[in-house]
Amino acid sequence: MIDIKNERNLTMLTDFYELTMANGYLHKGMQDRQVVFDMFFRRIPDGGGYAIVAGLEQLMQYLDNLQFSEEDIAFLRSKNTFSEEFLDYLRRFKFICDVWAIKEGTPVYPQEPLVVVKGPVIQAQLVETMVLLSLNYQSLIATKSTRMNRVAEGRAIMEFGSRRAQSYDAAMLGARAAYIGGCTSTACVIADQYYNIPAVGTMAHSWVQLFPDEYEAFKAYAEIYPDNCTLLIDTYDALNSGIPNAIRCFNEVLLPKGFRPQGVRIDSGDIAYLSKKMRVMLDEAGFPECKIVASNSLDEYIIRDLILQDAKVDLFGVGENLITSRSEPVFGGVYKLVAVEEEDGRLAPRIKISESPEKITTPGFKKLYRLYDRKSGQAIADYITLFEEKVDDTRPLTIFDPNAVWKKKTLRNFEAVELLTPIYEKGKRVYTSPSLAEIQRYCRRELDRTWDEVKRFENPHRYYVDLSQALYTLKSSMLDESEAKIRAMIEQAKEQ
Amino acid sequence: MIDIKNERNLTMLTDFYELTMANGYLHKGMQDRQVVFDMFFRRIPDGGGYAIVAGLEQLMQYLDNLQFSEEDIAFLRSKNTFSEEFLDYLRRFKFICDVWAIKEGTPVYPQEPLVVVKGPVIQAQLVETMVLLSLNYQSLIATKSTRMNRVAEGRAIMEFGSRRAQSYDAAMLGARAAYIGGCTSTACVIADQYYNIPAVGTMAHSWVQLFPDEYEAFKAYAEIYPDNCTLLIDTYDALNSGIPNAIRCFNEVLLPKGFRPQGVRIDSGDIAYLSKKMRVMLDEAGFPECKIVASNSLDEYIIRDLILQDAKVDLFGVGENLITSRSEPVFGGVYKLVAVEEEDGRLAPRIKISESPEKITTPGFKKLYRLYDRKSGQAIADYITLFEEKVDDTRPLTIFDPNAVWKKKTLRNFEAVELLTPIYEKGKRVYTSPSLAEIQRYCRRELDRTWDEVKRFENPHRYYVDLSQALYTLKSSMLDESEAKIRAMIEQAKEQ
Repeated sequence: MIDIKNERNLTMLTDFYELTMANGYLHKGMQDRQVVFDMFFRRIPDGGGYAIVAGLEQLMQYLDNLQFSEEDIAFLRSKNTFSEEFLDYLRRFKFICDVWAIKEGTPVYPQEPLVVVKGPVIQAQLVETMVLLSLNYQSLIATKSTRMNRVAEGRAIMEFGSRRAQSYDAAMLGARAAYIGGCTSTACVIADQYYNIPAVGTMAHSWVQLFPDEYEAFKAYAEIYPDNCTLLIDTYDALNSGIPNAIRCFNEVLLPKGFRPQGVRIDSGDIAYLSKKMRVMLDEAGFPECKIVASNSLDEYIIRDLILQDAKVDLFGVGENLITSRSEPVFGGVYKLVAVEEEDGRLAPRIKISESPEKITTPGFKKLYRLYDRKSGQAIADYITLFEEKVDDTRPLTIFDPNAVWKKKTLRNFEAVELLTPIYEKGKRVYTSPSLAEIQRYCRRELDRTWDEVKRFENPHRYYVDLSQALYTLKSSMLDESEAKIRAMIEQAKEQ
Repeated sequence: MIDIKNERNLTMLTDFYELTMANGYLHKGMQDRQVVFDMFFRRIPDGGGYAIVAGLEQLMQYLDNLQFSEEDIAFLRSKNTFSEEFLDYLRRFKFICDVWAIKEGTPVYPQEPLVVVKGPVIQAQLVETMVLLSLNYQSLIATKSTRMNRVAEGRAIMEFGSRRAQSYDAAMLGARAAYIGGCTSTACVIADQYYNIPAVGTMAHSWVQLFPDEYEAFKAYAEIYPDNCTLLIDTYDALNSGIPNAIRCFNEVLLPKGFRPQGVRIDSGDIAYLSKKMRVMLDEAGFPECKIVASNSLDEYIIRDLILQDAKVDLFGVGENLITSRSEPVFGGVYKLVAVEEEDGRLAPRIKISESPEKITTPGFKKLYRLYDRKSGQAIADYITLFEEKVDDTRPLTIFDPNAVWKKKTLRNFEAVELLTPIYEKGKRVYTSPSLAEIQRYCRRELDRTWDEVKRFENPHRYYVDLSQALYTLKSSMLDESEAKIRAMIEQAKEQ
């Protein structure tokens, strides 16, 4: 069997235009020109107040394995688009970029660079598709998972969506991202094998249907799995048949063997109503520890609603609404050029302007700091600076809202933490991911350090992402310059 | 490089409960009991009138490769859940089921079996997750693709969504499904390499930004790709800079070399307005054949709207709304037990009842016919029968609506075509997929044979999926029996 974690090579998973541009840069002798690209996103899914970044581990696997095979070269030659010189470059391809990234599990906000790639344009451009593809999906699911886990108020959420995932990798990596966001387990066996996410599961309705009656089905299961017996009780009639048969099975099969039941699962009907009835029946039968597991098209709103109704659910199983982030299935990361080496070797900022203000990029090679209040430990604001700037957190710092510059705030007694970590230096990996369990813990801790107002679902407070004075001045002046440059281009075009 | 088409083994991509049940069946000596499972869906995405089935080729690759490695066995042993006897069974696992499926590209309707698996319960249960996972995603995207391609009225649609796909397989298989549904090409290079879907692409805004001005960027591109020159004209100002610079480039670079332009691409702004202005400018400059390519968050409704506004767009590039089926990102296929071998060796039907009528399964081992009018060639109705029934299309056939049995219709001069094709016989593959281009043509032809009323977006006509009299009688009597059985179980439970 192939270990897809390490051996699958996704080098050819790229947009065709990355290759036509790369071929073009080589043709023009521009291939070694240094550039900087930022990967960032503009809008938080589900109208939320934060996103959780995830997918870095898979991006690194891609970058570690980035090489073109002879079959790849032959295929590309058959497109009659690329020069032999370029194909030869690809054959000898060796990744030499510098890469920085925000650690998986970190709460992140629009306009912040999540990944920064600096290196020769022919390479920094080429990796665009996989930077986006790797981070977009897992960030989407990790974010969704934290939303569900937060409202579950300590009750465990199991990821049950494999069959509805958008294809195979989504089933595995969706389970991974769901775990980062706080899920305790998955139904997906291969996600356990690859990522050590505990795989769980008991029986489907088909198990119950295969036996002469429900009690026989329960009895058979309990005899085989007395130490881990969770029974699916809604094949026929949850309250009138399922629970009585489960209780009989616990009494007649488990107790004589010296075991206690794990739980009962319900996958249909009115969970709020049924779970309360079930709880009373189980308690009265002497099984107060028997957990009630609920599934059936749950999402963060239904989970919250169930808890508000005092539903007696101990564990939730969540399927399609998590693994596809059904309510908003796209995380819109983009990858934009922010700096280019000029003739004199200087790295000059680039800006992409747009009619829509939120589509204007923040120019330049940058750093990102998170500023924490030393007293409360809470994150106060993020602060984007030019790369060469250093934030001195032993002195007061005045920050301002780049969209409303008169809104100022002076921070004292704060800690500034750099969020962009070096991942590759000249193509060499210099970062190793923590274990997934550590990432999960880190994510929870960092979300705990985020104000509740930012985490609420409705009209969340917009977390402050401020620019340093130097970066703000640069961006403002470049906006002016761009306008002038475009006017000049238009004049020039008119003259033709 | 690993050829993931053939070599990736996804045997362990299964829900944990498939394994606990399989272990249980073996433990109870039930492993060889013959059963039949139907895979079907209940609701058409986007409120549409039809779905397109896709993903069978990938399901067959999974089934062809279904085997557990020693690493898999060791991993499963570590779960402390499975008996050594079961692990040994898995080690020697050899797929021996019979499988039928509807060909990829076929329009399909709720409640119809898309895949039928018949074999020993230990095996037929085990493949559930991958049957669903394989068909759900590609069917979702193929369906969406036909919706977009239909409203594009012959204009080509290019699949551009790789970066926003829900992970790697989704990028590749989404491109495949989009092609089945009528897209002509993809941005995804690996989808071309694996599935022969033409990969296309030219330049990103970053290309334009890397040159001193827009004209220099266009000139450089045109010099390298004079025979395939499509220019992205909205980096600065589409009408005032982009188009004039493109025209200048066509005149100064392409014409002297003896080439004509391919197209111009626009990725922002008001496409209806801009494309009309662009068309006039290009025509007046003597480039009436220069195509206008539009992208930017398009979906079937925006494409239809653009065409209604007489937008001058020749090709559409569609991204996230297609590759994730953003408006409805879940195809809810399910896999249900419909027949079980009894003690006497007879295959007895099973029904799953539910409070919701559409959740009640159609029992038994079945066949599915599509009935075409011989005169018009159009599909009139689908007709589900017991497996042993044979539809004789040389005689009149009276069909009726199973939800309103008084609605009857007698068909004469019709052709009955069986839709479920044998795919595996006793575990041996007996079917080879047509080429992807053939599947695309077949899909278009079959959709052409579907009434327009079924294909419209708003309140589509519900296509008739009728049951034979024998199957209807069976289902009705089983519903009655189930009620009685459940009542008996409840009585029995009360007595405890």
